[in-house]
Amino acid sequence: MLQYVTTNPGKLREAESYLGDEMIDAYDYDYPEIQAPTLEPIAAAGARDAYREVGQPVVVDDAGLFIEAFDGFPGPYSSFVETTIGVDRVWELAEPLSDRPASFRCVLAYCDGEAVDDPVDDGDLPVQCFTGVVDGEIVAPRGDGGFGYDPIFEHDGATFAERTAAEKNELSHRGRALAAFAEWYQQR
Amino acid sequence: MLQYVTTNPGKLREAESYLGDEMIDAYDYDYPEIQAPTLEPIAAAGARDAYREVGQPVVVDDAGLFIEAFDGFPGPYSSFVETTIGVDRVWELAEPLSDRPASFRCVLAYCDGEAVDDPVDDGDLPVQCFTGVVDGEIVAPRGDGGFGYDPIFEHDGATFAERTAAEKNELSHRGRALAAFAEWYQQR
Repeated sequence: MLQYVTTNPGKLREAESYLGDEMIDAYDYDYPEIQAPTLEPIAAAGARDAYREVGQPVVVDDAGLFIEAFDGFPGPYSSFVETTIGVDRVWELAEPLSDRPASFRCVLAYCDGEAVDDPVDDGDLPVQCFTGVVDGEIVAPRGDGGFGYDPIFEHDGATFAERTAAEKNELSHRGRALAAFAEWYQQR
Repeated sequence: MLQYVTTNPGKLREAESYLGDEMIDAYDYDYPEIQAPTLEPIAAAGARDAYREVGQPVVVDDAGLFIEAFDGFPGPYSSFVETTIGVDRVWELAEPLSDRPASFRCVLAYCDGEAVDDPVDDGDLPVQCFTGVVDGEIVAPRGDGGFGYDPIFEHDGATFAERTAAEKNELSHRGRALAAFAEWYQQR
């Protein structure tokens, strides 16, 4: 059975909705995340490490908010930046920009020890990555829902904190990565 | 011979000035840095990885600027933050604070596969860490020397960008970590 390396039951449910709940299970393993300016090498290294630990096909994810004018900041360190300077200060940083395009990104990395169609370059075990992106822009905080950067990320006229959970799931960067992965995995 | 895992000739020279140039050499190995909110686990994981690769006693370092009111931001990700939002924006973030204490920190991690006096907790190989700290505060950028966060870090009345290279070396957080390490290592 495919193992989703996560302790988050919401992530498992989201994955089950794309793959079927007979197909995927959650595996609690705290792999060391590496440092990199983009998500792909981080998720890929995690998938290799987790596959060695678990010995079954694994999926690992990583996600973050990427602000274009800031070369992707906070990107892979979104969680660290949220708990240190906080989301309101990220807005203050972005406010003077004339243009504030940004994206929520999620990368899923898959490893089962076998060759894949489109392997990530580095590393000894083949890994394939699937990316989900939601484009939007950074705005002054609005809305009471969601968490993290949701109040300052606007997509299609509303921030993620102004949307219902159902609307957010519909737009989810993780959902988009899972859809791409599920399509590929069901052929495998 | 002790191997300093770095490609920076300046770091090797600084280490030689504390240990003697018969004692330490530079080893070019690009170990994967892990993510953590503090330097110690990052340097320790690097030392374990490098010791496995090199097979000789190794020293690995990590360094960063820690702003107290921001829970240590940018900390271990100082280099990423510098190349994405830039040093001037870190000053803009800090400007509204009533109090701006900060420190330059360097951690040296040593691993030779043998037991050490005061091992870092996690991990399979014993590692000992040595920390060097220079306290100061964040100020509006001043001075043309140095690099990175030097213009916004004031210690004892001058920013690091207003000091000569000799003065900076005298105050170096890396130098302080090297001094602590050298004292311990010469007993070993």
